[in-house]
Amino acid sequence: MKFGGSSVGSVERIRLVAERIAEKQKAGSRCVVVVSAMGDTTDDLIDLARQLNEQPPAREMDMLLTTGEQVSVALLAMALHKLGCEAVSYTGWQAGMLTDSVHGKARILNIKPERVQESLERGKIVVVAGFQGITENGEITTLGRGGSDTTAVALAAALQADLCEIYTDVDGVYSTDPRIVRRARKLDTITYDEMLELAHLGAAVLHPRAVEYAKHYRVPLVVRSSFTRNEGTLVKEEADMEQGIVVRGIAYDKNVAKISIIGVEDRPGVLARVFTALADRSIDVDIIVQSGVKDGKADFSFTVSKEDLDKALEVVSGLRGELSYDEVRSESDLVKVSIVGAGMVSHPGVAAKMFDTIFRQGVSIKMVSTSEIKISCIIDSEKLTEVILALHTAFGLDASAEAYVGGPKERR
Amino acid sequence: MKFGGSSVGSVERIRLVAERIAEKQKAGSRCVVVVSAMGDTTDDLIDLARQLNEQPPAREMDMLLTTGEQVSVALLAMALHKLGCEAVSYTGWQAGMLTDSVHGKARILNIKPERVQESLERGKIVVVAGFQGITENGEITTLGRGGSDTTAVALAAALQADLCEIYTDVDGVYSTDPRIVRRARKLDTITYDEMLELAHLGAAVLHPRAVEYAKHYRVPLVVRSSFTRNEGTLVKEEADMEQGIVVRGIAYDKNVAKISIIGVEDRPGVLARVFTALADRSIDVDIIVQSGVKDGKADFSFTVSKEDLDKALEVVSGLRGELSYDEVRSESDLVKVSIVGAGMVSHPGVAAKMFDTIFRQGVSIKMVSTSEIKISCIIDSEKLTEVILALHTAFGLDASAEAYVGGPKERR
Repeated sequence: MKFGGSSVGSVERIRLVAERIAEKQKAGSRCVVVVSAMGDTTDDLIDLARQLNEQPPAREMDMLLTTGEQVSVALLAMALHKLGCEAVSYTGWQAGMLTDSVHGKARILNIKPERVQESLERGKIVVVAGFQGITENGEITTLGRGGSDTTAVALAAALQADLCEIYTDVDGVYSTDPRIVRRARKLDTITYDEMLELAHLGAAVLHPRAVEYAKHYRVPLVVRSSFTRNEGTLVKEEADMEQGIVVRGIAYDKNVAKISIIGVEDRPGVLARVFTALADRSIDVDIIVQSGVKDGKADFSFTVSKEDLDKALEVVSGLRGELSYDEVRSESDLVKVSIVGAGMVSHPGVAAKMFDTIFRQGVSIKMVSTSEIKISCIIDSEKLTEVILALHTAFGLDASAEAYVGGPKERR
Repeated sequence: MKFGGSSVGSVERIRLVAERIAEKQKAGSRCVVVVSAMGDTTDDLIDLARQLNEQPPAREMDMLLTTGEQVSVALLAMALHKLGCEAVSYTGWQAGMLTDSVHGKARILNIKPERVQESLERGKIVVVAGFQGITENGEITTLGRGGSDTTAVALAAALQADLCEIYTDVDGVYSTDPRIVRRARKLDTITYDEMLELAHLGAAVLHPRAVEYAKHYRVPLVVRSSFTRNEGTLVKEEADMEQGIVVRGIAYDKNVAKISIIGVEDRPGVLARVFTALADRSIDVDIIVQSGVKDGKADFSFTVSKEDLDKALEVVSGLRGELSYDEVRSESDLVKVSIVGAGMVSHPGVAAKMFDTIFRQGVSIKMVSTSEIKISCIIDSEKLTEVILALHTAFGLDASAEAYVGGPKERR
């Protein structure tokens, strides 16, 4: 069971979480609980650090930030004792979370869960600090974004747990953002790959690293709410087909900018030259489209995140002499809309249906990118809501009732 | 160098402490710094815990409270980096502070300062979390009251440091409480034994455990202010004699209650019976006086702390059948005044001078207790101030100027 920062954001919430865990244990489960730092703790600590040093050493930041989770685990263990449950809290290093030494975004190398296992065998509830680990030299590290989810999944894998439950501020994984589509459908099951696509596409219920980890070790995941008793969404290898629904979810990303290089001499290595130069400046490129060659010259376009647009334009300008192109254009009022579904590959009409639906909204598609389980279209941002609503209906995703969108916002 | 909680109570103070350390390093010292939790952090954490569990498990309290010092060391290391000093922070376990497993008041068993030493050899300033350690089973412990002082002294001993400086909210060790005697004299030097007596007698500049540790390992200690640049007091094996001053300090204890058992049959084992019964109830007895035997019956009196008075009276009542005494009396408006000085033993007139000085104030002495370096008198509490002022003058302790008593109050 993993509880995020808002789930343990106050004494009262910690008490509720403890009750939920105690219930689970009484029902016969052996529980390991991973928790994040309480509410705003991490931000408060970062703020303190910045007052002393605008660029604090990453090693010292890790020393500082890991205290947040240590406070949470101790308090949760106390709350469990109060309910008569034997509980024991462990820091990351006590739980055997070995990582590499990249402070601030360490990766888990190995888990030695002997102490956790021993405590479980003695009938104890084990509460482990998320987001943190230790290097082989005894240095304290943090796992970076999505760290506590990853701790939970990795521990579940190491302990061969039957289930890894991620308790968060939403009811589960939805067919699309319920703030846009009130009749968004909560999915009962979803595959790891679908979840990964949705996670990467900005549906931030689970961090992609945690999903990758779960997929790799085949850890069955459940995403569910800390604040309601509703059933969540089960993430696993094969999702159940729900009455012929091919498209499982619709995601969007507002952080899209497009650069077009017009009239580039069409010779080998040109594309590679551009994208190597971008990578050298740590600019991630998403969709790349090359249009037909005419008179020995080609146009090509690619997308980057909005904050990278200026840097990317600089890189492209710097290559003008070398590439001898005619012109560079850029646009930043764009969005990416994606449909995701593992069954798509065996249903050839899906792409056509998507394009047709968007076309019927009077919206032109600027770029397209596809994978086995996903189709993404770049469109003007102004029509985003209409397009998502139309796609949601067209692919039969509308639920019979409106989605629950209340509850405090989880921090990750 | 050890800095207490109020010395690192805010971002601004941490910055000042960092400057002071940087200065010390530039002057050629290799520095290990021990710090406490910031200001009220520990109390705030205790308060959080009590909201969840009025009797939180001691192990979990240690998990919780040790985060306070971990925050301080990380922030101080960041502040040092900002000043261009290479610094590295360590938790208690990283610094090799091995303790027994008595959570909440663990004792240091051994120190393995290899990491600290290695960092020092690389020219780094090492910042160590005070008050905490680790058991051989990898459980996090706290050292209890005075813990950070003890960490500092123990590390100084393990590293064979030239000096252990305790930075606190007072200028040094004074001949008596400057709030009572404005002309209290700051002592340049004092012996471990004198310091121990003063510490036990309530002059809480240093915790007795830390002094005992320093005495045992002959660690030269300096007590000085974090807030001024004044010279502090050097605590060592032999103190320099200052122009014939035999009595070094005057201490007092307001927490005194007296019980007298009148007309006890004088037979062997009676005293032992009483004090065993008191010890069984964990009641500490301080001064014991037996008066002369008359008609085969004796009177005897002893002192306990005020909060133990009722419990002690209960114990004595319970023994009435066995001891067949005539009567029990008690008093609680009493104080203990003590004079302390290592040179006393070779100056036989000291006790007489003390009694005479108290007598001249029109105060009667109810009980007396002596050791080689201390004489304590129990008197009525109402005349405490006059007696201390008179003794301070009589033993030539009055300074030529008034003492500095400002600065924020240190927490220990």
